[in-house]
Amino acid sequence: MKIGIIGGTGDIGKGLALRLSNKHEIILGSREASKACEVAEETVCTLGERNCASLCRGVSNEEAVRDADIVVISVMFQHVAPTLAGINSKYLENKIIISPVNPMGRKDGYFFFNPPAEGSAALAIEKMLPQSAKIVTAFNNIAAHKWTLLDEELDYTVAVCGNDVEAKKTVMKLVSEVSKLHAVDAGPLAVAGIVESLTPLVLNIAQNNGMKDVGVHFS
Amino acid sequence: MKIGIIGGTGDIGKGLALRLSNKHEIILGSREASKACEVAEETVCTLGERNCASLCRGVSNEEAVRDADIVVISVMFQHVAPTLAGINSKYLENKIIISPVNPMGRKDGYFFFNPPAEGSAALAIEKMLPQSAKIVTAFNNIAAHKWTLLDEELDYTVAVCGNDVEAKKTVMKLVSEVSKLHAVDAGPLAVAGIVESLTPLVLNIAQNNGMKDVGVHFS
Repeated sequence: MKIGIIGGTGDIGKGLALRLSNKHEIILGSREASKACEVAEETVCTLGERNCASLCRGVSNEEAVRDADIVVISVMFQHVAPTLAGINSKYLENKIIISPVNPMGRKDGYFFFNPPAEGSAALAIEKMLPQSAKIVTAFNNIAAHKWTLLDEELDYTVAVCGNDVEAKKTVMKLVSEVSKLHAVDAGPLAVAGIVESLTPLVLNIAQNNGMKDVGVHFS
Repeated sequence: MKIGIIGGTGDIGKGLALRLSNKHEIILGSREASKACEVAEETVCTLGERNCASLCRGVSNEEAVRDADIVVISVMFQHVAPTLAGINSKYLENKIIISPVNPMGRKDGYFFFNPPAEGSAALAIEKMLPQSAKIVTAFNNIAAHKWTLLDEELDYTVAVCGNDVEAKKTVMKLVSEVSKLHAVDAGPLAVAGIVESLTPLVLNIAQNNGMKDVGVHFS
């Protein structure tokens, strides 16, 4: 499968490249293609040192979308609309779009969920996409820092939301190929806001209780 | 400590009576005191069979509040206002009030978070209490059914929210006395809605993935 990542030089892009590029083609997109190329080269190097093959390259955000079967939007919520506006929307048609986006803010020393009027980033992003695109939320609650620590397992539950049953199944299968992540069907897109809001919650729990890289397990 | 439970014949009341009445006085309140008495007697019986002492009694909701140091509001959100309206508010003054209340709904086969205009049950309940009362949220995400299964450990994280630092500490200590519950400071009351919304999420995860009594762990 070809997985294109908008904002692919961030933790999720780096992490997916390191953890999946031996099984899938990972296409890292960036506003600056040269930056994405660098990260892709680093990934190939790192995996090469471990005698692992790596199919990974860096391109512009638009090329990453164009060439992908599945697109991951890995930019902060406020950057999603301008970034998508710079991409030919026909490249997004019929594709599965994964949103790990969590709109949040910080004040008085704590993090809070700061959703748009639609109730969640996912529902707002859905409106920005062609109707034929199938948006699914995943990877929302994984500590950013953990993604790139290749020797550490990601042992968390990933709550996946979406309205297209087949797209959701595809994403759940993909999630479960990453380290020890365990994907669960968390319901339709209508409840994605709950999953997004978990990220400010785990950040509060981490800072208030002297914990590091807090993740979520449902069991 | 004297712990009074409004709606004490529900799962949380029964569970706290079974799991804490050997250490604390548990005062179960109910609209029908006779029903609370029955549950209290059952508790004493059950623990007696295990050679455990149990300090537990059943009374009216108002008496449960009057006699308690800490009050737990264990009724559905829509019943909180009418129930509190029937209790002399002076009995609530200066007390720690624990809210495990999660406002939610169900439609099209999934559960959703259905908060009042304040953003959470906790913030709405705060307005119904005397200013001197210290509201803290806890026990929001524990599978109802599990509370009363005395042979099963409750091995979950309990995210505790509140604005009064001392009250929050007291509640966290109390939570950690129950089975294997692990209390964490999840921030001020302003973010309690996130914790409340986790309950419809875990219900969706349970029903969509063939899981039972799903709980939450942060680690």
